Amino acid sequence: MRTDLECLFNPRSIAIVGASAEFGSISGQPLDLLIKRGYPGMLYPVNPKYPELLGRACYPSLDALPETPDLALIMVNARLAIRMLEACGRAGVRFAIVFSSGYSEAGEAGVSMQEELAAIARRYDIGLIGPNCQGLISVPSKTYAGFGSAFIYDYVPGPVSMVSQSGGFGFSLMSLAAMDGGVGFRHVVTTGNESGISSLDFMRFMVDDPGTRIITGYIEGMKDAHRLRELGEAALVARKPIMVWKVGNSEEGQRAAASHTANLGGAMALYRAAFEQTGILQVEDMQDIIDYVPAFLSEKTPHGNRVAIITISGGAGILMTDEAIARGLAVQPLCDATVAKLRPLVPSFAALGNPIDLTAAIFDDTDLCRKALGLIIEDPQVDSVVMANAGLQGEIATKVAREVVNVAARSDKPVMLAWSARHQVAGEAYALLDAAGVPHYRSPLRCVRALAALTQHAQACRRHDNRRAEPVLELHASEAVATLRAARADLTEYRAKELIGLYGIATTREMMAGDAQEAAHIAERIGYPVVLKVQSPDIAHKTEAGGVRIGLASAGEVERAFEEIVTSARGHAPHATIEGILVQEMVVDAVEVIVGINNDPLFGPAIMVGLGGIFIEVLKDVAFRLAPITLSVAHEMIRQIKGYTLLIGARGRPRGDLEALADVLCRMSAMAVDLKGELAELDINPLFVLPAGRGVIAGDALIKPRLQA
Amino acid sequence: MRTDLECLFNPRSIAIVGASAEFGSISGQPLDLLIKRGYPGMLYPVNPKYPELLGRACYPSLDALPETPDLALIMVNARLAIRMLEACGRAGVRFAIVFSSGYSEAGEAGVSMQEELAAIARRYDIGLIGPNCQGLISVPSKTYAGFGSAFIYDYVPGPVSMVSQSGGFGFSLMSLAAMDGGVGFRHVVTTGNESGISSLDFMRFMVDDPGTRIITGYIEGMKDAHRLRELGEAALVARKPIMVWKVGNSEEGQRAAASHTANLGGAMALYRAAFEQTGILQVEDMQDIIDYVPAFLSEKTPHGNRVAIITISGGAGILMTDEAIARGLAVQPLCDATVAKLRPLVPSFAALGNPIDLTAAIFDDTDLCRKALGLIIEDPQVDSVVMANAGLQGEIATKVAREVVNVAARSDKPVMLAWSARHQVAGEAYALLDAAGVPHYRSPLRCVRALAALTQHAQACRRHDNRRAEPVLELHASEAVATLRAARADLTEYRAKELIGLYGIATTREMMAGDAQEAAHIAERIGYPVVLKVQSPDIAHKTEAGGVRIGLASAGEVERAFEEIVTSARGHAPHATIEGILVQEMVVDAVEVIVGINNDPLFGPAIMVGLGGIFIEVLKDVAFRLAPITLSVAHEMIRQIKGYTLLIGARGRPRGDLEALADVLCRMSAMAVDLKGELAELDINPLFVLPAGRGVIAGDALIKPRLQA
Repeated sequence: MRTDLECLFNPRSIAIVGASAEFGSISGQPLDLLIKRGYPGMLYPVNPKYPELLGRACYPSLDALPETPDLALIMVNARLAIRMLEACGRAGVRFAIVFSSGYSEAGEAGVSMQEELAAIARRYDIGLIGPNCQGLISVPSKTYAGFGSAFIYDYVPGPVSMVSQSGGFGFSLMSLAAMDGGVGFRHVVTTGNESGISSLDFMRFMVDDPGTRIITGYIEGMKDAHRLRELGEAALVARKPIMVWKVGNSEEGQRAAASHTANLGGAMALYRAAFEQTGILQVEDMQDIIDYVPAFLSEKTPHGNRVAIITISGGAGILMTDEAIARGLAVQPLCDATVAKLRPLVPSFAALGNPIDLTAAIFDDTDLCRKALGLIIEDPQVDSVVMANAGLQGEIATKVAREVVNVAARSDKPVMLAWSARHQVAGEAYALLDAAGVPHYRSPLRCVRALAALTQHAQACRRHDNRRAEPVLELHASEAVATLRAARADLTEYRAKELIGLYGIATTREMMAGDAQEAAHIAERIGYPVVLKVQSPDIAHKTEAGGVRIGLASAGEVERAFEEIVTSARGHAPHATIEGILVQEMVVDAVEVIVGINNDPLFGPAIMVGLGGIFIEVLKDVAFRLAPITLSVAHEMIRQIKGYTLLIGARGRPRGDLEALADVLCRMSAMAVDLKGELAELDINPLFVLPAGRGVIAGDALIKPRLQA
Repeated sequence: MRTDLECLFNPRSIAIVGASAEFGSISGQPLDLLIKRGYPGMLYPVNPKYPELLGRACYPSLDALPETPDLALIMVNARLAIRMLEACGRAGVRFAIVFSSGYSEAGEAGVSMQEELAAIARRYDIGLIGPNCQGLISVPSKTYAGFGSAFIYDYVPGPVSMVSQSGGFGFSLMSLAAMDGGVGFRHVVTTGNESGISSLDFMRFMVDDPGTRIITGYIEGMKDAHRLRELGEAALVARKPIMVWKVGNSEEGQRAAASHTANLGGAMALYRAAFEQTGILQVEDMQDIIDYVPAFLSEKTPHGNRVAIITISGGAGILMTDEAIARGLAVQPLCDATVAKLRPLVPSFAALGNPIDLTAAIFDDTDLCRKALGLIIEDPQVDSVVMANAGLQGEIATKVAREVVNVAARSDKPVMLAWSARHQVAGEAYALLDAAGVPHYRSPLRCVRALAALTQHAQACRRHDNRRAEPVLELHASEAVATLRAARADLTEYRAKELIGLYGIATTREMMAGDAQEAAHIAERIGYPVVLKVQSPDIAHKTEAGGVRIGLASAGEVERAFEEIVTSARGHAPHATIEGILVQEMVVDAVEVIVGINNDPLFGPAIMVGLGGIFIEVLKDVAFRLAPITLSVAHEMIRQIKGYTLLIGARGRPRGDLEALADVLCRMSAMAVDLKGELAELDINPLFVLPAGRGVIAGDALIKPRLQA
């Protein structure tokens, strides 16, 4: 697939295949709009029905064009579009946008037509956009290559590039964000069914595109989600935030997404893991995008998450504090030294904790604003400042804005304002702030959210810098690869534990016994109490088959249990092959955890951790990350689960051996990479986490091989 | 306290105590603003410094006025304000707003000054608003009795009344919501420290006020939160929605709230319970208020939660579906009959599940809109309809709006639109919708949220209607009252269980034993296995003291355990009074639940239920309701906890006896009411929930009496 997308967004010439003289219709709009918006390159309408359109020569076919266009817009029906794409290929056209609907979003017949499109694009190396999309707008090059109500505006170019899988919604987002939200766009492309170039291809291009500083995406699903990680990390290195609005998250919404652009939904848990892991910011509405853009364009990076909240009327301070805490910011008291310097400046009833209420005294003395803000921003325990100016308006507003701009200019810490005066009464103040790049928001909540996004991104960048210095554990076990390649069914406990042992994961001391006497001998060697478990590839649920006995404390008990298990298993599954009975040490004093590998078809191998029992079964309390992970990521995963408090010693327990647990997660990650081609799923359940210093032990394991074709 | 607030919002005359000739200053603004906004009553500035102000006679003191004003605005410092309020009292002034700061929000000295204010107000029966507030605006009577940037507008009267504890924030909310959000306000009052009339007094008045149809509140904390319930229920009966923006929810936010208007925060869990119980809608930002108002003013009530989502471009349907599901709406397929009628109207690739994508075909045929919408709204499985029109603009937008208005007029089901065209290009369409009272929103998400709020309120109204027909269990046990009145310490298990037994709650079979032989005799009668527990008012944590033995299966084991417990307890607490050792049946096969009563100082008695163990301790997974509750509310509480799935039989368990559990919650409620004056806290932990039909049994109980003065 072509990745030299620069040419797509800045084509020297465009053919419009199926151009129509009805300029209000879908196929009539592009030529008209490209001309109206001042596209400077050559335009070639193609339609045998017309000799000319809007003063341009109209050609009967692609073959008849005087040159090979850089880009073709294909505006004909689904069936015909296939032939037109083929014609593009023969003519050597580099990029084609197929607007037509009626492909995979419309059922069986459409799916095969879409496959034809993809095959043609591959054969001729055409960069294919769509089908079932609404085209693109590249603002700097005036390439308005599409249709719809967003195409009537001459946008002011800016540094924000966007990919949207939905055409209609994406462009309406663009026009509202630009015209009403003041967002300056660069490249905006809608991708529809993504038979060719995907959203991730576009975002990857934008990371490298020097003119793009912020990347946004409206995403229903990604077929190549395993690339999210490389994308996110490249963007962190480039210090370009990616804001993704991911929809189709409820079961019902996923159904709707599938019938819309026919992108696979994928598990939201894995999307969330990938976003979190790579610092991709999830947004939840257009307003988030509008709000975050000026924050990122202010080019100030908070060094930590501690915010000072200043108000001139306490009310807003409370809700800003709530929101800051909810979004991971810290609202801590100022240094004593700062408070001591502030005290003489403000009325006696002013609150100087954090939030800091300067009170209405600011009305009588705007100097107070400069002095107080100056002191607070220099406080070593403050990483960023938000100031809520309520409805401050008129002349005093202008004065305050000027003071804020001056203080902000002298600091590298972000300063943001919540200022709810209407534009009519504080326009001059707002203009000063805009000119100086000081973000300001009507809503105190939105101000805090924007700062939280900025802080979150700065933290992700720092975390990534640190991670790059961390080693990634790599392990290779050719024996494991061979075992899985040969496997024709799930591996039973005993074999699965042998396999994970190859990657250095400790397992319970255990041996297979063929008869009751042997079981008793093994138990003597392991030490009582022991556990007995039936091992059979035909018995998936050992407990239900009566195939497990725990707490056996003597040779007699072991022998009796052996016979009972065999009888019970035979009764449960008369034709099962019983490999033997596993005699196993019984682990006490441990917190039971589940760790796993899910080799997802969209995301590739993901590592999972969660607490056992109800935490997993009832609460679905698990953390995922895409492999490979480093040690610090493993610790992040552990801290993220709600059951974490149990691991660090809630309810009078000793603290668990978190270091050993994190080490196992890294080994799982290395195993996931090593066995990527052979493994479908692996669960260690339970993994016993012993008290600190005593390690972790796999109590049981299940491996589902990826059956080879 | 005066509750005839009609006069406050429509005063015939107003005195401004401390009026100033500096009309920009706080004390100078009210007279100027009242005149500018056209207040029709008499205005009496009071200040010995001036003979007249703005052409009005200025009086040296309140005594000098020619008549007794209905309302006095007190704009002098905190200390002087006390004397002025006293003067108001002597003169017979009915209402006074104290604007001054420096009371309880400013520490010790302020607290006692605020108490003086309150005492004067009580003595003279003055309706006191504030102190530390910013006054009120009653739009219909042009009473602009306050100061600040919100007072420069002549508002258009409407049916929304608002209370705000924050002056600055409340009024900036009002002006933005009115001027930019189109919300029509009626009475808006800021209450500050609420030394006199509280937010709840005002909201209660608004429920009865014929001109108010929607009530909103910006609340930091309520000192009289126990009245929330009566307020909420009265509003449900009156069918008036109350939207509350409650802030100060994080620990840090509560601290900030305390230093702001000095209102007690109260536990957010109890606020949430009270809101939920009484259908009070929690909002989270100004935009929610702006969005919900037109939805409620449309006067259409959904009969259920099933929404049909219609789009003309699939993209928005997906995110609307996600949001609908997240907010408790159901997005289910249409009836087959409806789909069959729709099919011939739309292109073959149109999706007719739900969301329903009519596709861009609507551009060529606006009739399609009328026909499809008409069919969908009549579907018996649809309770409400949202339609997303993307950026539809110009003439076609007007046509579509007209069709929507016609269809909506013929149905009693709510119809709402998500329509993101800018006003400049769809003004005519929007005007048609506004005139017909069809709500429309720029953002598809906000459209769904408004519908969800409307649906939630309709459900709360129906639920309340049903509840009023339910009996409320009332129980009286004079013996229990007497026991608690006499108590000087917490009740031990044995006594606490005797007490709950008086209210018909089953407890474990058990008897106190004085020596080992007696313990063995009791055990024989109860049946093995049994549990032994030390009973001592001096040993709060029985297990830690080695005072509990479980699973005792023979007389010998019981006798040995008895001696061990006594030895161990003596070792743990040498001077403890040991009342005896409790011999108790051992319950197996049960899910352990905790139920409790918390007689909260702000909210009064609240009933709690949660699952035992980590659910309570780690996850804080509990449901609260204010007492008394009915049986249906008890079942709601049980369904609300996350551990509910365990109670209905997750992990292979039998379904628990939920009927018996709900019955116990009702008994707890009756007990909480009966013992309101005597009980501080009661916990039954564990309450054993046996399989369905076998009841529940209290395993242990702790009662903290409310120590009598």
